[in-house]
Amino acid sequence: MPLATEIVDAEGHLIDSQLLTAMWDAIVRRDGAFEILEFRIGRTNDEPSFVSMRVSAPDANMTELLEELVTLGCRVSGAEDAHVVPADSSGCAPEDFYSTTNHQTFVRRAGQWIAVEKQRMDAAIVLDGSRAECRKLRDIRKGDLVVAGVAGVKIVPEFKARDRMGFAFMTNEISSERRVEVGVAKIAGMMREAKKAGERIAFVAGPVVVHTGGGSYFGELIRSGYVDVLLAGNALAVHDVEQALFGTSLGVDMETGKAIEGGHRHHMRAINAIYRAGGLRKAVESGVLTSGVMYECIRRNVDYVLAGSIRDDGPLPDTIMNLIEAQDRYGAALQGVSLVLVLSSMLHGIGVGNMLPAWVRLVCVDINPAVVTKLADRGSSQTIGVVTDVGLFLRQLATALHD
Amino acid sequence: MPLATEIVDAEGHLIDSQLLTAMWDAIVRRDGAFEILEFRIGRTNDEPSFVSMRVSAPDANMTELLEELVTLGCRVSGAEDAHVVPADSSGCAPEDFYSTTNHQTFVRRAGQWIAVEKQRMDAAIVLDGSRAECRKLRDIRKGDLVVAGVAGVKIVPEFKARDRMGFAFMTNEISSERRVEVGVAKIAGMMREAKKAGERIAFVAGPVVVHTGGGSYFGELIRSGYVDVLLAGNALAVHDVEQALFGTSLGVDMETGKAIEGGHRHHMRAINAIYRAGGLRKAVESGVLTSGVMYECIRRNVDYVLAGSIRDDGPLPDTIMNLIEAQDRYGAALQGVSLVLVLSSMLHGIGVGNMLPAWVRLVCVDINPAVVTKLADRGSSQTIGVVTDVGLFLRQLATALHD
Amino acid sequence: MPLATEIVDAEGHLIDSQLLTAMWDAIVRRDGAFEILEFRIGRTNDEPSFVSMRVSAPDANMTELLEELVTLGCRVSGAEDAHVVPADSSGCAPEDFYSTTNHQTFVRRAGQWIAVEKQRMDAAIVLDGSRAECRKLRDIRKGDLVVAGVAGVKIVPEFKARDRMGFAFMTNEISSERRVEVGVAKIAGMMREAKKAGERIAFVAGPVVVHTGGGSYFGELIRSGYVDVLLAGNALAVHDVEQALFGTSLGVDMETGKAIEGGHRHHMRAINAIYRAGGLRKAVESGVLTSGVMYECIRRNVDYVLAGSIRDDGPLPDTIMNLIEAQDRYGAALQGVSLVLVLSSMLHGIGVGNMLPAWVRLVCVDINPAVVTKLADRGSSQTIGVVTDVGLFLRQLATALHD
Amino acid sequence: MPLATEIVDAEGHLIDSQLLTAMWDAIVRRDGAFEILEFRIGRTNDEPSFVSMRVSAPDANMTELLEELVTLGCRVSGAEDAHVVPADSSGCAPEDFYSTTNHQTFVRRAGQWIAVEKQRMDAAIVLDGSRAECRKLRDIRKGDLVVAGVAGVKIVPEFKARDRMGFAFMTNEISSERRVEVGVAKIAGMMREAKKAGERIAFVAGPVVVHTGGGSYFGELIRSGYVDVLLAGNALAVHDVEQALFGTSLGVDMETGKAIEGGHRHHMRAINAIYRAGGLRKAVESGVLTSGVMYECIRRNVDYVLAGSIRDDGPLPDTIMNLIEAQDRYGAALQGVSLVLVLSSMLHGIGVGNMLPAWVRLVCVDINPAVVTKLADRGSSQTIGVVTDVGLFLRQLATALHD
Repeated sequence: MPLATEIVDAEGHLIDSQLLTAMWDAIVRRDGAFEILEFRIGRTNDEPSFVSMRVSAPDANMTELLEELVTLGCRVSGAEDAHVVPADSSGCAPEDFYSTTNHQTFVRRAGQWIAVEKQRMDAAIVLDGSRAECRKLRDIRKGDLVVAGVAGVKIVPEFKARDRMGFAFMTNEISSERRVEVGVAKIAGMMREAKKAGERIAFVAGPVVVHTGGGSYFGELIRSGYVDVLLAGNALAVHDVEQALFGTSLGVDMETGKAIEGGHRHHMRAINAIYRAGGLRKAVESGVLTSGVMYECIRRNVDYVLAGSIRDDGPLPDTIMNLIEAQDRYGAALQGVSLVLVLSSMLHGIGVGNMLPAWVRLVCVDINPAVVTKLADRGSSQTIGVVTDVGLFLRQLATALHD
Repeated sequence: MPLATEIVDAEGHLIDSQLLTAMWDAIVRRDGAFEILEFRIGRTNDEPSFVSMRVSAPDANMTELLEELVTLGCRVSGAEDAHVVPADSSGCAPEDFYSTTNHQTFVRRAGQWIAVEKQRMDAAIVLDGSRAECRKLRDIRKGDLVVAGVAGVKIVPEFKARDRMGFAFMTNEISSERRVEVGVAKIAGMMREAKKAGERIAFVAGPVVVHTGGGSYFGELIRSGYVDVLLAGNALAVHDVEQALFGTSLGVDMETGKAIEGGHRHHMRAINAIYRAGGLRKAVESGVLTSGVMYECIRRNVDYVLAGSIRDDGPLPDTIMNLIEAQDRYGAALQGVSLVLVLSSMLHGIGVGNMLPAWVRLVCVDINPAVVTKLADRGSSQTIGVVTDVGLFLRQLATALHD
Repeated sequence: MPLATEIVDAEGHLIDSQLLTAMWDAIVRRDGAFEILEFRIGRTNDEPSFVSMRVSAPDANMTELLEELVTLGCRVSGAEDAHVVPADSSGCAPEDFYSTTNHQTFVRRAGQWIAVEKQRMDAAIVLDGSRAECRKLRDIRKGDLVVAGVAGVKIVPEFKARDRMGFAFMTNEISSERRVEVGVAKIAGMMREAKKAGERIAFVAGPVVVHTGGGSYFGELIRSGYVDVLLAGNALAVHDVEQALFGTSLGVDMETGKAIEGGHRHHMRAINAIYRAGGLRKAVESGVLTSGVMYECIRRNVDYVLAGSIRDDGPLPDTIMNLIEAQDRYGAALQGVSLVLVLSSMLHGIGVGNMLPAWVRLVCVDINPAVVTKLADRGSSQTIGVVTDVGLFLRQLATALHD
Repeated sequence: MPLATEIVDAEGHLIDSQLLTAMWDAIVRRDGAFEILEFRIGRTNDEPSFVSMRVSAPDANMTELLEELVTLGCRVSGAEDAHVVPADSSGCAPEDFYSTTNHQTFVRRAGQWIAVEKQRMDAAIVLDGSRAECRKLRDIRKGDLVVAGVAGVKIVPEFKARDRMGFAFMTNEISSERRVEVGVAKIAGMMREAKKAGERIAFVAGPVVVHTGGGSYFGELIRSGYVDVLLAGNALAVHDVEQALFGTSLGVDMETGKAIEGGHRHHMRAINAIYRAGGLRKAVESGVLTSGVMYECIRRNVDYVLAGSIRDDGPLPDTIMNLIEAQDRYGAALQGVSLVLVLSSMLHGIGVGNMLPAWVRLVCVDINPAVVTKLADRGSSQTIGVVTDVGLFLRQLATALHD
């Protein structure tokens, strides 16, 4: 098989972020080889390193290999502008479009590196004059100038080193065998800092927040101003209303823990009551709904979005069943958010994770380690996983923020 | 607190279906008491039992208690017709509407017991002349005659006894410590019987079917005519197409098991390719898509419905992102289905479970016992849970059906 | 196949304890049939029921069927004394020995029903004059009079009904989707009652208690007198000492949550330090060990037993590596205990569960629902399972007991 | 705080084995700093790299930091012999003893680097003339010359790079969402190679092997000569014998999957039967035991060791309840083994993992991803984790080895 050869450069915390390892892995996995042309190691903790390599690989593999190396922070050597191809139809991209990661990306245009806006993963990059932005395939319109191939594309991966000391205190291992109190203290500190810096905090919450008795503590966080955005599904709101109206969650009495068998109907009654009131906001205004997470959100003007799912009963009038709209509303609510906490919500948590740039910090809390592992696996060092009971976690967090 | 008193009757396999236990539980949990007025026990394995009880409970609890007893098969004594209330607005029900279970239900109208059609849980019952049917709250229109309260409502729970010998061979415990081969043989037998009886079989399948290498075995089942309906999400189809076009699933090479790091883009390319082809069916017709689960479904005219979720990339043009429509399409496809297999798909599996009457048999296969427990927990004896590897399960099943 | 026939009687909460269901299940599973000769149902919540049945089954199945029915509380009709066979060698029983359950058992001798002492499961019953006791197979000596078959054996199963209102508040379902605070309040109440009644409380604790930061709260319980017995393995003590000496647990700093990589050696140093001191007690006396769970146990004279396992490092001099001795020491420490809490310790928890009579209450706390299900599955209603974070659970429990 | 400074060197696949990253991590975590004195990067895939660093850290942290760096392959610069201290009492080591890892270790004596024998983790190193070996603390005798501190100690970590291409095909992620067939093919290949090379293969197996129907496939492996050593607990043998004698496992019929309620006694009968026969071997010889895993082991002269645990019933006469002896027997059986498969056996798997040097390959198969993660986490690249159903895995493996 004929070999192709390219020279690539990279600079940064190449070793302690394990980028160099990942590059070499990629090359070898594609049956390629490399030769180091230049290597300067950071001589101290803080200095960046630099590498220049001649990479060779079978012709057929070279395109994918370069894509991967670019993802890891390499720049194809030899200054070339990004290639752009006009979209030949709406709703899809040219065949060799560049598919984005969630890391900060730059594209070269007329010799200048332009920062790509609205960074998110699995998008195309559309150039418009001197600006560039991530665009979902379905939002591409015929004639849009779409970046193709990897020439003139540069990524700046989050360097793991930078936050090793601070943020990622337990990222090395997701385990239920950890002291959660330590994690809670760290997370409370991050929340306080975010608010002090005027940044926004979003929560993604599943109905387990209510089932496990975390609702009232979550309400405290809302009242204290720590929740700017709430992204959830229908079920969180339904069971929250169920608790507010009937004192049960999924038919289980929240004070005694006893299952009330007919209680499975409470959630349908809750839906019906909100429907009759004309929606959650009107239910609050008319005095039908006087407590709970949704009540606090409405009183405090938290930006909340409820996205539907195939398993939803009802749904509540507030739940958005058109998912194109729901995804857009989620995306809009996340603008300017610097910290996201995902509480027992795999589905909506993955949805949100897909929308975020890598530098937004993400805290995932779930009692199932497999869920935390899945949520936290986003190629970013800005992720914390905590395996614990969500109800008790919220209690600890409310206490820690109160102190 | 003032006490209310009612007399209720029930007949059937009250003891071996544990219905009598459940009734007494319900009474005591609501601070009530009972007195047996008449009891005739089935003297042999097959004879039904009969009970008549005077139930007393605090006034405030009596309505919910009766609802619960009706759910368990009791009839409020004293022949009364069902109460109906006209809906005062569209999209919701009167406040004390009767909320259905998934068990066969009858309502009394003009002294006659009418079987309720389109049985499903969490619906209202609407009377229309001499017919009655389950209707979702959102589908109620102003003026519809909605059943309220429990008078004149009768349920016939599935009797566990009946199938103890056959179907529910392992329902007593959901555990990974079981011999799956035994379960596979039983399930293969049920599938053969269903086809012989001219019944329809539906599959609900998650993307793990593809990731674990089950796709080709699932394709065999489709070609052999064992799959009448496929209900899934966007991800199953995306990763199936990804495997057909690139040989990877989530970027993992299906032959070598190696992760192809840039392979994470394959799924976006797959979406783009189908979009460019104009959808899955056109992709098959134009020769873009030539293998895989979706290919087999299209070739074999399997009724497939892909429902969207908040985390979907793309989605494929075939994926229905309006969930009201998606739920209706799912519901329509399930008409006449007598057996459903849910393969590693909690979200869509729960959605489907909510739509099914209790007498449709449901087989849930997942490697996570908590998922199986959750899916199988539908108040019906017609459920089997199998905790195992889905890829290997499909291989065994294809082999068993081949023999 | 020739049929055998027997008449059996039973009395008690046959329906709400689901005993009658279980009996019929057993008969049908063994290809048998039954005819009800007499049935008197308890007419109110509190009245017992009575049944007399003629049971027929294939000859080959009858022995096992009767064993099973006896386990469920049936008495073989026709007053016969228990059959005894002298053991023909030490360390094992006659072939058809009666193998015990953990329920209160009586054997008939000279027309009198004698209560069997030292009730535990999987033992033989040895008669000695007018006394009868459970004995492990290995403790049988040649010539011991061992009960064989089921004639003259009667069991009184725990009636689920009795404690449905009090103890078993969440036993119907083991789930992580529960409000743990409710469970904690109940458990704290049971502990207070046990102490007030002068009963003993035992804890079975795994090293996760220390890893999750529960050690200091557990120490509070010990100081408050709520821990009479501690049954554990080597690892609990090792990591407890590691934390006392080095501030780490499994090499993770308990204050900062950071892994100290060389910290994996701390546990070996901890073992070595205790060894050099001559054991835990001497380490406390000589001032080497001045804090932690083991320190509190020694200071408070808690009866602790550390049992070895194949994976133990060291072990500590206090750890009993001869398991015959360890089982005997565990068994002795459990005499007179009325409440056992198992905290994240599957191995030792199962060991303890095997030793307990059914009427000792068992609370199992673990973050893994599969472990809780396994531990709680002992054929007894006296079991509570709580799926939660053990560290936070202990914090809540210490707070609840303090209030 | 006063700073200490040392110069350390390391050579090898420092970057692609992530050793350099780990070294820098260690330094920074201990509040230290480093300066690169010399760095030569391997210019191609195969060339080793070399680094020499000046490391400074607070005085109090330097000892632990150096220990950690040595663990990662660093040599403290300046040629010094290892320090040895005579043990002052039997059963424990001097306070600052060097605690081993499972990686190949060398100690410097009289200017020569001596390879340490019987390499295992968590041991001390004892020098005896020109030889050095790992010794458990409890096996140290007064006067033994024990290595203390890190001077003159050198470790050669397994280089991940070397086997990235071959062995560790799926080590990057432990997940149930993988195609097990690929893993089975690889493992079958490794087993064939091991046998061809005349190496020994050990299995560690839990009772789930029997419960899931894997027993007969495991028997095939034994008959085909792929099992040289079987390490297990009492339960594997008990349920294997139970199946051989009664056709059930834990009371569940292996052919029909039905629970046989009285079947819980079968395992006690099985134990009693073996006891009466005088042990497993005699039971085979006398024709009492004629099938199953233990039968095949005895017929094939597989070296089997059954180690006791606190939860054991019986135990069988063959089960070693003195764990000091059991650990020694396990250790002896593992001599010369180059490949170990752990099948659903966390307890015994961890025990075995602790005994193995890092270069012995370990394959861990379990349906619970948390167990696989725990077993596979031994600081070695020679570990594969497979999350799947053990019964079906064995079936696939037997088929793959047969082909």
